Amino acid sequence: MSEVKVEKNVYNRNQELAGQNRQRFQDAQTYVINMVSSPGSGKTSLIEQMGPRLTSAGSKVFVIEGDVETERDADRLRQLGIEAVQIQTHGSCHLDATKVAKVLAGVKLEEVDLLIIENVGNLICPTGFDLGEDLRVVVASTAEGDDKPVKYPAAYHKADVCILNKIDLLGHIDFDVQQFQSGARRAKPDLTIFHTSCRTLEGIELWCDWLRSRCG
Amino acid sequence: MSEVKVEKNVYNRNQELAGQNRQRFQDAQTYVINMVSSPGSGKTSLIEQMGPRLTSAGSKVFVIEGDVETERDADRLRQLGIEAVQIQTHGSCHLDATKVAKVLAGVKLEEVDLLIIENVGNLICPTGFDLGEDLRVVVASTAEGDDKPVKYPAAYHKADVCILNKIDLLGHIDFDVQQFQSGARRAKPDLTIFHTSCRTLEGIELWCDWLRSRCG
Repeated sequence: MSEVKVEKNVYNRNQELAGQNRQRFQDAQTYVINMVSSPGSGKTSLIEQMGPRLTSAGSKVFVIEGDVETERDADRLRQLGIEAVQIQTHGSCHLDATKVAKVLAGVKLEEVDLLIIENVGNLICPTGFDLGEDLRVVVASTAEGDDKPVKYPAAYHKADVCILNKIDLLGHIDFDVQQFQSGARRAKPDLTIFHTSCRTLEGIELWCDWLRSRCG
Repeated sequence: MSEVKVEKNVYNRNQELAGQNRQRFQDAQTYVINMVSSPGSGKTSLIEQMGPRLTSAGSKVFVIEGDVETERDADRLRQLGIEAVQIQTHGSCHLDATKVAKVLAGVKLEEVDLLIIENVGNLICPTGFDLGEDLRVVVASTAEGDDKPVKYPAAYHKADVCILNKIDLLGHIDFDVQQFQSGARRAKPDLTIFHTSCRTLEGIELWCDWLRSRCG
């Protein structure tokens, strides 16, 4: 079999399994978001803020953490009382629908209202792998520079929401917000963009309110 | 052919071609560095600083830029008078020895003393692909957080040098330099680590002096 054929098979099989995940999520009435970004954009810090805000008497949050190595991110969340399971990919550069299905086997999905999947830090490879999510969120740190959407357009094209994080650094770096946003909207004209900081908490409530209106 | 076999074939073929590149570099007496990092760590900004410092009457610098999309980085360098050629991978997540060999066909390597290859912004996939370089440099931005070496150990294990960039941000972010360095040295005990800022220029001369002593 040629490399191209093998690659096509991998994508096709993933799409089929993502469909099965999506059906399971719908049956359980679980809203699912898939967070994609470069390493160190602040996905886990965002989830630390989102978890307590989106958990209430009637709403349970569960997190799947994807990393190449370590249980660190899941540990960080558990310390805050957020239920989380860690997938360590041991070298693999993205999560896929199979990996997600495997960890879901041990989760009572019917009790989960919002499932947050934090993908492996990589702005390229996770793009092509549907996990069965309802919402794809691309997170960017201001420190990465305002040219990332034009250099990695697929990550933005495939996203429904963009979170521009670490906006507290704007006074200390060269970053043109307009340039960033126009690049992101060139890749995806109807992209919803939030600005957040996990240090000053600017924008966190707005993003959580918006998400609550979707999954509540 | 199974997926695993295809993958093994890809790596073996790359290794063979990297060997051919290495021979060509040695014959031309060209010293080659391969810079690997997350998107937005500041690789191009570093090269903007390195180019003029490492170019002299007797020493010519040439840059190969790797990006998923756009000629931006090569354009940035050309504007400073640094000779550069851009590889656009159009979705592919890393450079490989073949892509490098192809662009080298048009380069008079005998006239180049230092070839800088800026890999695609990705802390995972470029790790496994030798390009035939003399020196592998992993660049990290402080804004990415001090846990990146333990979460992406292969990138550090395969590197000879680590540049911790954007150290001007240290007062504005949560970052433990000791934690970062001990994580990096756990992956690669004899890793040489430089601290740099392309805004204050701290550490730039030291890194360029060290590199000059290697390739001069």
